Amino acid sequence: MNTLQIIKVGGKLINDPTELDKLLKAFDRIAGPKILIHGGGRKATELSQKMGLEVKMIGGRRITDADTLEVAVMIYAGLVNKSIVAKLQAKGTNAIGLTGADGNIIQAIKRPVNDIDYGYVGDIKHVDGKRIESLLAAGFCPVFCAISHDQRGQLLNTNADTIASVVAQSLAETYDVSLKYCFEYDGVLYSIDDPSQTIDSITADLFQFMIADGSINAGMIPKLSNGMDALKGGVNEVAICGIDNLNSLDNATLIGL
Amino acid sequence: MNTLQIIKVGGKLINDPTELDKLLKAFDRIAGPKILIHGGGRKATELSQKMGLEVKMIGGRRITDADTLEVAVMIYAGLVNKSIVAKLQAKGTNAIGLTGADGNIIQAIKRPVNDIDYGYVGDIKHVDGKRIESLLAAGFCPVFCAISHDQRGQLLNTNADTIASVVAQSLAETYDVSLKYCFEYDGVLYSIDDPSQTIDSITADLFQFMIADGSINAGMIPKLSNGMDALKGGVNEVAICGIDNLNSLDNATLIGL
Repeated sequence: MNTLQIIKVGGKLINDPTELDKLLKAFDRIAGPKILIHGGGRKATELSQKMGLEVKMIGGRRITDADTLEVAVMIYAGLVNKSIVAKLQAKGTNAIGLTGADGNIIQAIKRPVNDIDYGYVGDIKHVDGKRIESLLAAGFCPVFCAISHDQRGQLLNTNADTIASVVAQSLAETYDVSLKYCFEYDGVLYSIDDPSQTIDSITADLFQFMIADGSINAGMIPKLSNGMDALKGGVNEVAICGIDNLNSLDNATLIGL
Repeated sequence: MNTLQIIKVGGKLINDPTELDKLLKAFDRIAGPKILIHGGGRKATELSQKMGLEVKMIGGRRITDADTLEVAVMIYAGLVNKSIVAKLQAKGTNAIGLTGADGNIIQAIKRPVNDIDYGYVGDIKHVDGKRIESLLAAGFCPVFCAISHDQRGQLLNTNADTIASVVAQSLAETYDVSLKYCFEYDGVLYSIDDPSQTIDSITADLFQFMIADGSINAGMIPKLSNGMDALKGGVNEVAICGIDNLNSLDNATLIGL
């Protein structure tokens, strides 16, 4: 089987034009079929503030009301996604920028309201890997932002780490898939105080231990969880890494079951 | 050759949710390969106002400075384009939303500064019809917004009527192309005072006469001009029509050479 590289890049790298350019250069150098999945960065918050929108949080989680969804679509699917596409095209990568509504590729349901109404947030129910394959086969490099849809005309704000995991799983039967969560460090750190010390690999046991121990950053937990799901779903390799590790996993953290 | 239907829809229809839904229903009913190209509507102006941006006009023409371009990308490529895609998917059309940067399909240059600096406005130099064909062949229905790029990483605000014309021409060797400029009337009116009286056909001679005569609306001139260019470029049929004429050209205005 051919190898397919799927890179997910987070908000902090997106925010910094120099880091973003470095990332896109490294991504452009990856040979063979590849997919980029990106978060939103702080531009959505900035636009919300300019528009005078109130940021609604419940229990520490952001609520996506109708106005906030519009901002997310404008920033993620519009400004961030298409700027990345134009920059990749300039480097020679045949990028095509997509939400999950495009080609009906990422199908979700609006998160059911139990205790909390998260608003227009999507829980993914299916990814149409065949449609992604048809784009790859036609020579395109899909660039996904973190927006899905409910197949009834409603766009939905959706976690980019989860999108990366389910997109990777949807292609695991056709490709040897390598999934890399790329962020501002070389890998998962033993301690936030020393960015040079990265953990070589994290298995399910160690992951549970680190959660119980409280030694893992809260933001890293869903990333690792999504990574483990990807491995269970047939993805060959999952790593947490920095920009310098996109083409070799020297200091990266490998995820294991 | 197969017939390809290309529909361009203007801002006024985009602004009105009821009209937009009517248009998307009619578009969904078109059988065979099809492409939708849309303008921006008034949402870009509304967002500019909310953000406190000054609308800059020189000689009656809007200037696209860096902030205005960001708004155009957010609204055209983000909110408007992806909302249309989600709505078309809900009706069963396999829409995929694109700018000209996606797949490097619409290549432009930033308009040279002579007397007036229009800012980030694109003059189209090439459309890659083969890339559009590969999307059509893979079963996608491309939905283009009015953004192109300069192949060096810069997105550019670009006239949607012109995009429709050049996209149609790029596919004229492969398909029998029918290009329809869809707007709020059934066709070009003899007089704005009587929307029921549409002109059956406009040839180059009549067009010149109407311009000299001053009997044609200023906004209609570039549309007709782009339509004539399309015919010269091998497009089989060009019409100016309303939503009700998408599937039959009963009251529409046909363009002739």
